[in-house]
This record gives sequence, structure tokens and C-alpha cells, in this order.
Amino acid sequence: MNRSELVSLIFSKRSFLCIGLDTDLTKIPRHLLDLEDPVFEFNKAIIDATHDLTVAYKPNFAFYECNGTNGWGSLTKTIQYINQAYPEQLYTIADAKRGDIGNTSQQYARAMFDASSSGMNFDAVTVAPYMGEDSVKPFLTYPGKWIIVLALTSNKGAEDFQFFNNNGNRLFEQVLTTSQRWGTDENLMYVVGATKAEMLADVRKIVPNHFLLVPGVGAQGGSLQEVAKYGLTKECGLIVNSSRNIIYASSGHDFAEKARAEALKMQQEMSALLILQ
Amino acid sequence: MNRSELVSLIFSKRSFLCIGLDTDLTKIPRHLLDLEDPVFEFNKAIIDATHDLTVAYKPNFAFYECNGTNGWGSLTKTIQYINQAYPEQLYTIADAKRGDIGNTSQQYARAMFDASSSGMNFDAVTVAPYMGEDSVKPFLTYPGKWIIVLALTSNKGAEDFQFFNNNGNRLFEQVLTTSQRWGTDENLMYVVGATKAEMLADVRKIVPNHFLLVPGVGAQGGSLQEVAKYGLTKECGLIVNSSRNIIYASSGHDFAEKARAEALKMQQEMSALLILQ
Repeated sequence: MNRSELVSLIFSKRSFLCIGLDTDLTKIPRHLLDLEDPVFEFNKAIIDATHDLTVAYKPNFAFYECNGTNGWGSLTKTIQYINQAYPEQLYTIADAKRGDIGNTSQQYARAMFDASSSGMNFDAVTVAPYMGEDSVKPFLTYPGKWIIVLALTSNKGAEDFQFFNNNGNRLFEQVLTTSQRWGTDENLMYVVGATKAEMLADVRKIVPNHFLLVPGVGAQGGSLQEVAKYGLTKECGLIVNSSRNIIYASSGHDFAEKARAEALKMQQEMSALLILQ
Repeated sequence: MNRSELVSLIFSKRSFLCIGLDTDLTKIPRHLLDLEDPVFEFNKAIIDATHDLTVAYKPNFAFYECNGTNGWGSLTKTIQYINQAYPEQLYTIADAKRGDIGNTSQQYARAMFDASSSGMNFDAVTVAPYMGEDSVKPFLTYPGKWIIVLALTSNKGAEDFQFFNNNGNRLFEQVLTTSQRWGTDENLMYVVGATKAEMLADVRKIVPNHFLLVPGVGAQGGSLQEVAKYGLTKECGLIVNSSRNIIYASSGHDFAEKARAEALKMQQEMSALLILQ
């Protein structure tokens, strides 16, 4: 999905919501556990209940890998289901935080983007910048695909290195500056945590047009209003993720319905913010 | 496997070799492609031919993930085979370069270390430091398990951020310093690339006793003699990885035999270096 298609999707759905599929066997409704693939069935129900309110889904790979080969199967079925049931209606993010030397990142790129190799075909993958240019460039050789580079994350540990300072230039700012040489605002986004919303103003000085993927609204304490205040652009420029608040809104038989109600609250709030643009 | 067991293994095998299982369907001998799981069969043959010459194996996850669910199956069978066929004789490294917020890294830790969850039980996992303390600490809650933190990598892109400089203190040095608060030399190692062997002297000033996992010898151009000169300690303190030079020594029916010959060359060179200690 290219940038103009993504922007169209956002304004037609009046939403810049991403739903994080951090699907945990210990948290999904117990009645699903009797099914052959409870994780996939949970995801499918969540997707069917929320696909018109969200522009993106973001499976978090850790929650599938912990179930081994079966988990990787649930993940594959989930991305295949989204692409088959709702073609061109959803932007899909492999939240995998990959990054390695060039010949290895080439293989990760095949895993995320090449269905003929891995069975999976995501629009975007999250990548860690520590290993530099050749660790992320192989992902950019796929037309229409995106990388989402970790810049300023939402967790406490972000302070350990992301604020490492070279004459007033912090590491996350250097990542924003250097990585712009690797791609464009048509194939490169950044992760910027909602828990540090006021810092979005600093981020926007360096990347005024790039899309930002913003985790941390909701369970982690970030505020949507604050994020929009500092991060929203004329073309929206934001994808705001919510995981636990939506997908675990209920642990009963009404889990999908309650997830829809939470997604709808966020979509309505987002719709109002987009009108102000 | 704890540190003293690892050190014993190194001195009894007179080897500090790690064989990287970067197993690529396009590079393995063609006669294996008719088998049900060519990747696993290749790995098994390499392991059977080299297990007494190497102290560690390091499957590179990208090379399995690119084959989707089947690839994850080959990976699982490989680690299970090592643990069952050669118990307590080999140190196993999940080369996965993971790292995410705490509740996500908990799930990655289950994937790498908890066979009852994922079917896989590695001794160690490589982790990326960018997200800081809470992104790596969940891996350290498993007794006897290790994290191997990226410090100074062997690729060209390492220069993009790892040398980012705060008053003479470079980012990779800050990673070495800060991360020592997270664990000890009993459960924490560092990745330091062989292509920057002379920098091992700088690394050893900060971490004199920690084990270092050194990629980049061989195909990437690093020298074993140089690595040993700057990195070897009384307890060895080094695990040197070689992947392509060993596993792709031949693409014919004699691939395992030729892999053994290459591994033997390295083991003999290592044996001579260990005696000098």
C-alpha cells in the first residue's frame, strides 16, 4: 500500500487507529480454548468486528513465537485472513523489531513481505536501528513496502540510550536524521511513543511529513489528544496503536462486541481530531 | 548452561568455535531438496559431523522465518535435535536480535527458553539494546540462561550509530557500561565483530571478564589471530562464530565431511591459541 492509498484510507474511514494483535492465550476468552486454533479464531473475530473502524492491524510477533510453530501458524493465518477478507482496506504491520547484517535482513524481508516464500505479506515491518543502514535497507527493495524505524519508544528503558547526547543532538534525533537518507516519506515511518507526547514537537522539527506509528496510548498511559496536538499533519501523519484496551475489553462471549465499542470510541475521537485539520 | 560449564567445555574440546546455522535452501546441496525437511536434514548432518569440534551452534532465525511456518518447524527440530543428541555438550544461541517493551520481551523469552511453551530451549539469545533495560531484563529471569547484547557489530552500518559520541564516550561503550547493571558475567555476553578486532582492546577495558560472541571471522573478513590477540582471557572469554565458510564448504554429497574439515582447521588454530593462555 502506498502513501496516497494510506492517506485516502485514513480520511475515508476517519480513523488513524491501529489495533495491536498482542494475542495472549492466557487472556483470551476461555470458551475459545476448545477450538483448534484459539489465537487465530480470536484475531478473526476481532478483525471482523473492527475492520471498518481501524486503518491498520499490528500483530506483535512475540505473542505468536512464544507458541512455537503453532504460533507462527496462527500468525500466518491472521495476515492471510486480513489480506483475503478485506483487500486494500487495511494496512498491515509486522511488529517484529528486526534488524541484522544485510544478508540476514534480506531473509527477514522475505519473511515479512514475500508470501511466495513465507506465506506472509505485510505492508510494513518495525525495525531496530542499532546496526545501521545495511540492516534496514534490504526491506526497502520491495516496492510498496515500508519500514517503521524505532526512534523514541514508549518504555522506561528508552531513556537508557535514546537520549544519549552528542553536543545537544540526542541519539533518537540522530536516528531520525540519518535514516532519512535510506528512504523517503513514501516508504519510511518512525515509532514515537505516546508516553512522551510533548517530544513529538521535537520529532516533527526533523520529520515534518513522515508518518509516525505511535504506541503507548491507553494501557501505557499516553493521551490521544496530546499526541494529535503535537503530531498531526495535513495528511494526518499519524497511526496510533492501541492493543490491550481494545482486544481485551471483555473476556466473555461478548469480547468482539466490546472490542468494537472501544475501537468506536477511539475512531470517534480521531474523527473529531481529523476535522480540525 | 552456566559459565563454569561453558569454560570447561571450551578447555575440554580445546575450541571456542560457534558454527552459525544460516541455512539457506538456495545454498544447500541439491540432493537434499527431495527430502521432507531439507533444512533440518542439512543441519543434522552438519551437527553430527562437527559437534566434537565446536562448543556452540547459532541458528540465525531469519533463515528459518523466510520459509514461514515450515521454517519455524525446521528451527524447532534443529534445537531439539542438538539438546537430545548431544546433551550438555553444546551451548546453543538463538540468533534472533530481539528486544521490545517488557511485556513483549517476556513473550520472546518464552519463545527462546521455555520448551513447554514454544518447543525451543536455547541457552542464549542475541538482543538489541536500543530499547534499554526493560527490553532485555525479562530474558534474565530464566536461571542458567544468557543474553548476548549487540555492542559493536561486524557490518558497515555499525558506524551509523554505534560510534555516536558523547564527550569521547561512544554509544557501544555506553551500552557496555550501562548493561553491566542488568546482569553479570555469568549471564551476559556481548556481540563484538571480528572486522573491528583492534577495537576489542577498547572493549576489554570496559568488560575484562565477560564472554564476547565474535562474528565476522571468515566470509566477512575478520582474522582469528587478531581477535585472540585482543580478546582472549584466562577463561578464554571468546566464542568465535563462523557460518558460511564451514557449512557451505562444499555443495556436493561430501558437504558434511568438508564442513568437518573446515571446522577442524579452526579448532586446531583455536587449540594452539588456548595453549598460549
